[in-house]
Amino acid sequence: MTEPRALPGSATPLLDRIHSPKDLKALSREQLPALTGELRDEIVRVCSVGGLHLASSLGATDLITALHYVLNSPRDRILFDVGHQAYAHKILTGRRAQMPTIKKEGGLSGFTKVSESPHDAITVGHASTSLANALGMAMARDALGQDYHVAAVIGDGSLTGGMALAALNTIGDKGPRMLVILNDNEMSISENVGGINKFMRGLQVQKWFQEGEGAGKKAVETLSRPLASFMSRAKNSTRHFFDPASVNPFSAMGLRYVGPVDGHNVEELVWLLERLVDLDGPTVLHVVTKKGKGLSYAEEDPIYWHGPAKFDPATGEYVPSKSYSWSAAFGDAVTELARTDPRVFVITPAMREGSGLVEYSRIHPNRYLDVGIAEEVAVTTAAGMALQGLKPIVAIYSSFLQRAYDQVLHDVAIENLDVIFAIDRAGIVGADGATHNGVFDLSFLRTIPNVDIALPKDAAELRGMLKAAQGVGGPVAIRYPRGSTEQVPDGTWPDLTWGTWTRERPGDDVVILAGGKALEYALKATSDLPGVGVVNARFVKPLDAVMLREVAGRARTLITVEDNTVLGGFGSAVLEFLNAEGLTVPVQVLGIPDEFQEHATVESVHARAGIDAQAIRTVLAELGVAVPTGV
Amino acid sequence: MTEPRALPGSATPLLDRIHSPKDLKALSREQLPALTGELRDEIVRVCSVGGLHLASSLGATDLITALHYVLNSPRDRILFDVGHQAYAHKILTGRRAQMPTIKKEGGLSGFTKVSESPHDAITVGHASTSLANALGMAMARDALGQDYHVAAVIGDGSLTGGMALAALNTIGDKGPRMLVILNDNEMSISENVGGINKFMRGLQVQKWFQEGEGAGKKAVETLSRPLASFMSRAKNSTRHFFDPASVNPFSAMGLRYVGPVDGHNVEELVWLLERLVDLDGPTVLHVVTKKGKGLSYAEEDPIYWHGPAKFDPATGEYVPSKSYSWSAAFGDAVTELARTDPRVFVITPAMREGSGLVEYSRIHPNRYLDVGIAEEVAVTTAAGMALQGLKPIVAIYSSFLQRAYDQVLHDVAIENLDVIFAIDRAGIVGADGATHNGVFDLSFLRTIPNVDIALPKDAAELRGMLKAAQGVGGPVAIRYPRGSTEQVPDGTWPDLTWGTWTRERPGDDVVILAGGKALEYALKATSDLPGVGVVNARFVKPLDAVMLREVAGRARTLITVEDNTVLGGFGSAVLEFLNAEGLTVPVQVLGIPDEFQEHATVESVHARAGIDAQAIRTVLAELGVAVPTGV
Repeated sequence: MTEPRALPGSATPLLDRIHSPKDLKALSREQLPALTGELRDEIVRVCSVGGLHLASSLGATDLITALHYVLNSPRDRILFDVGHQAYAHKILTGRRAQMPTIKKEGGLSGFTKVSESPHDAITVGHASTSLANALGMAMARDALGQDYHVAAVIGDGSLTGGMALAALNTIGDKGPRMLVILNDNEMSISENVGGINKFMRGLQVQKWFQEGEGAGKKAVETLSRPLASFMSRAKNSTRHFFDPASVNPFSAMGLRYVGPVDGHNVEELVWLLERLVDLDGPTVLHVVTKKGKGLSYAEEDPIYWHGPAKFDPATGEYVPSKSYSWSAAFGDAVTELARTDPRVFVITPAMREGSGLVEYSRIHPNRYLDVGIAEEVAVTTAAGMALQGLKPIVAIYSSFLQRAYDQVLHDVAIENLDVIFAIDRAGIVGADGATHNGVFDLSFLRTIPNVDIALPKDAAELRGMLKAAQGVGGPVAIRYPRGSTEQVPDGTWPDLTWGTWTRERPGDDVVILAGGKALEYALKATSDLPGVGVVNARFVKPLDAVMLREVAGRARTLITVEDNTVLGGFGSAVLEFLNAEGLTVPVQVLGIPDEFQEHATVESVHARAGIDAQAIRTVLAELGVAVPTGV
Repeated sequence: MTEPRALPGSATPLLDRIHSPKDLKALSREQLPALTGELRDEIVRVCSVGGLHLASSLGATDLITALHYVLNSPRDRILFDVGHQAYAHKILTGRRAQMPTIKKEGGLSGFTKVSESPHDAITVGHASTSLANALGMAMARDALGQDYHVAAVIGDGSLTGGMALAALNTIGDKGPRMLVILNDNEMSISENVGGINKFMRGLQVQKWFQEGEGAGKKAVETLSRPLASFMSRAKNSTRHFFDPASVNPFSAMGLRYVGPVDGHNVEELVWLLERLVDLDGPTVLHVVTKKGKGLSYAEEDPIYWHGPAKFDPATGEYVPSKSYSWSAAFGDAVTELARTDPRVFVITPAMREGSGLVEYSRIHPNRYLDVGIAEEVAVTTAAGMALQGLKPIVAIYSSFLQRAYDQVLHDVAIENLDVIFAIDRAGIVGADGATHNGVFDLSFLRTIPNVDIALPKDAAELRGMLKAAQGVGGPVAIRYPRGSTEQVPDGTWPDLTWGTWTRERPGDDVVILAGGKALEYALKATSDLPGVGVVNARFVKPLDAVMLREVAGRARTLITVEDNTVLGGFGSAVLEFLNAEGLTVPVQVLGIPDEFQEHATVESVHARAGIDAQAIRTVLAELGVAVPTGV
């Protein structure tokens, strides 16, 4: 199972000498394979604490090492799509000592981040953005008469994203000098899907390296000659390696295509990159890598080892999570729902595991669709299904739904179609930080006519809402947080009157209105404060006008709490309602402040944002409620 | 110049018999060319009133006729990407008599619209949505065990959109039976750009129809045989016509590719469609058409004739618009700005003409980029440019910026990059209706940290804002409406203190806060009401806290007016501020109600929404202001 170099504590004599890419260049080319072995050891050690991106980082280590060996970062710009595969990049660019702080409060980001290091070319977290960014950089360079290199590393999964494909379209058209490194590991987070993937599998059949190193080298040597002369030569002799015209989508669109090559032969990669980097125009280098490379158990199950729990590096043993996640609660509910309703159809943009859909996809394979990393397609495909009589459910993370704002509005909401959005990872997500926080959905969805928005307080209410949503008509968003909830038995389908709030604690003087995660805090904050009213404001749209009017008419003060930006969200909805009704009760609006929240634990971010139980108690005390010290 | 059948009043004996697709099928195949001639005459007549989509509708007429001849709408679903090329479809499906009402209040939509006709498969207006919708429909059909046909017509321009490419990826993977008709007219609204376009130009070199009709027919005949047998045959004999493996991106991704074929030979199209429609799996039929087909002046300048002003059908003569549009004001300003600042770079997603950038693109070709219909790419390419020292300006329509909400947030705002968004067509756009109204931008942009939002009242203020924005740092959105404004001389660069409002009319008791188009209404409403205060609330983010505090502290009532949804927009921002400051002055929030606004004139929609001058006067009267009758 295990391999010697994956053991913790192994010596890293080469790595110890490297504090910047400059130190890397002092190594001989022949030392690089040993270095990447050390890098992998280091990455395994770092990741064994759990919650980090192991498999993709192992897979990209040789490629990253070769890139830093050939290019001159930060002058040359190296972009990593998504950025979670760049651990070797962080280590090689002076952040080795800080690696144990990764994704922790005040520590390194789990992705690349411009403010973290001059070597991080882009701030990222969402997929498919690297090519447009790289295009912009290459065009900026040319417009300003500068001459650095731009290289974007993009996985085959990210390439299925619409904006990556559309960026290729413009790159092929404008043709600036740049490198697109296609890091083809035959999967994204889940199994890879789609026609692009089919195409790449087709290319791999013709791996040129199988023809022998000599043949490959000979083909590449010609690249350094004037392009025109090479073009005619290539047509005859090196067709599979570099076909200038119509053999594949990249060359058809105007990009030079080179590959596929072995992404774990670091010396070959260096040799190749040195020859490709100065060529005019855009070049696609298709590199084949293996997720989890060098760690046998990760190579065998890269989906689990994409972001594993805490594990023993020597054995790969880990303790599976015992908690019941909101994602599992959704997955269980929808699996059951689909048994009795043949119109249920679940769509995911490449998040089968993350959205709790593994079992669903096995039990209902004909009513399950993974569209790849293409949120826009997920939403509009659901629209087409709804138009033809299905009841589609789009399972999507809140921060990724941001990508399909227009599709929700234009393709679903205008015709008031029956599409349910099961929005996972809503609110602060913690360790993944600013790019992944789902703290805008209440605000941006609320602006769209016809969309109802519900926030379950627990798994039972989630089930009730899913069931009730089926009968409501029109688009419905049900949002729930990252983290765990109480499991409920199959068959739990509590009745629910759509659009109504419920009173969780009596009390008329000071009343807290909160839904979802925020309600949890409100209940905790008031567990020893019997006079404070707490309302489960489980619908943000529509508001429960009857209850809000009643509560507002009696209260001295309302407090709204939400795991969402304070701008335009639930609190604002309450203010709009009260103003329209001429009710002048003051409202304390607690929510995420209008700034991006850096990574930390969820609890820590909620505390500093001022929406956790302690923060609520502080506000209550300021309002004159007798609050005992502590919660 | 002119052609006989383009004359108004020509007889339409065949068309007169057609009130539904069923009537069309009663014609013989040989009568179809004459029918499409009549259809074109009809379309020219309808469009001569101006403001309609002439050239694209002429180009698609033969194809639409063939589709309705072969398929059985509405049972079979025919989808039109964008939907503005579907005039022949409207005429053939029983809406001929209503064509003169197109884009008018209460009349037909300028696009396809589900609620308008059972023959309109999707409601549309934005590009690139048809393939995902069609995929959803085909999968719904299969999931429900039904057996109708699904055919999506998509232009080469729309195909450059990311979600269309990403949808192709999943279509190729899942392989449901469906037709993708690529309506290749060698341009979108502006000149077409991009690698996909290059690819299609490459394919056209090999037009199989040039080999003679017999050859083409023979090739297609084989399609009706079992696919496996055909595959081997095709490899040898009909490669250019139908190559199953690696010749082009479509077949590489798993779609059957047929073409390119002549999109104006309606009999051939019928013959082909009859053979393709029953084939298993997805088929791409690549059809080459000419925008403006049959109308010589439109064929010669299809960009102008995309949506011409009122014209004489016989001569093609028209009166050019004399008004100075907001788009022209932006174009003039940025052309001048770029002369003195080499860091200015303007990006458009396929809207050179619409955004007033024709002259800019000629004068500054090296600092101009058209990314095709790919708003996400426009925004993130700007991010890359800003990271490398340029000052990019993304010129974009408000409703299309909805597509790049995440890119503004994730790629631009998190790192607070210097990107200016010049948002055209903000607010109600009138005749284009619900899909094109830009009434959400204040709300969705306001939620994003670091983004400032400005609303100029006129061309001078737009210039002042553009200039000032260059020095502000971070993302800035400047939004202005469709329509005209006063031209100002070159060199007009008024000073402007960022984030400040100005008083337009004194008055402390009742004060109207409004920016942009809404300010125009506020000033008109109060021209004879000297006591009513009017503030140019030209920044929605940040608000001018000093002035708002001052005004709110003295006023009996505030009125906010905005050409934006009442949810989460400017009025809500004022409510949030007042609530946070403990100011209890009542606010009348006037804006677009929380429902989609159907097409009509801008003035009419503003009147029914209650934000025009008359509506403001009504509110003032209700507040006790002595308002003379009339404005």
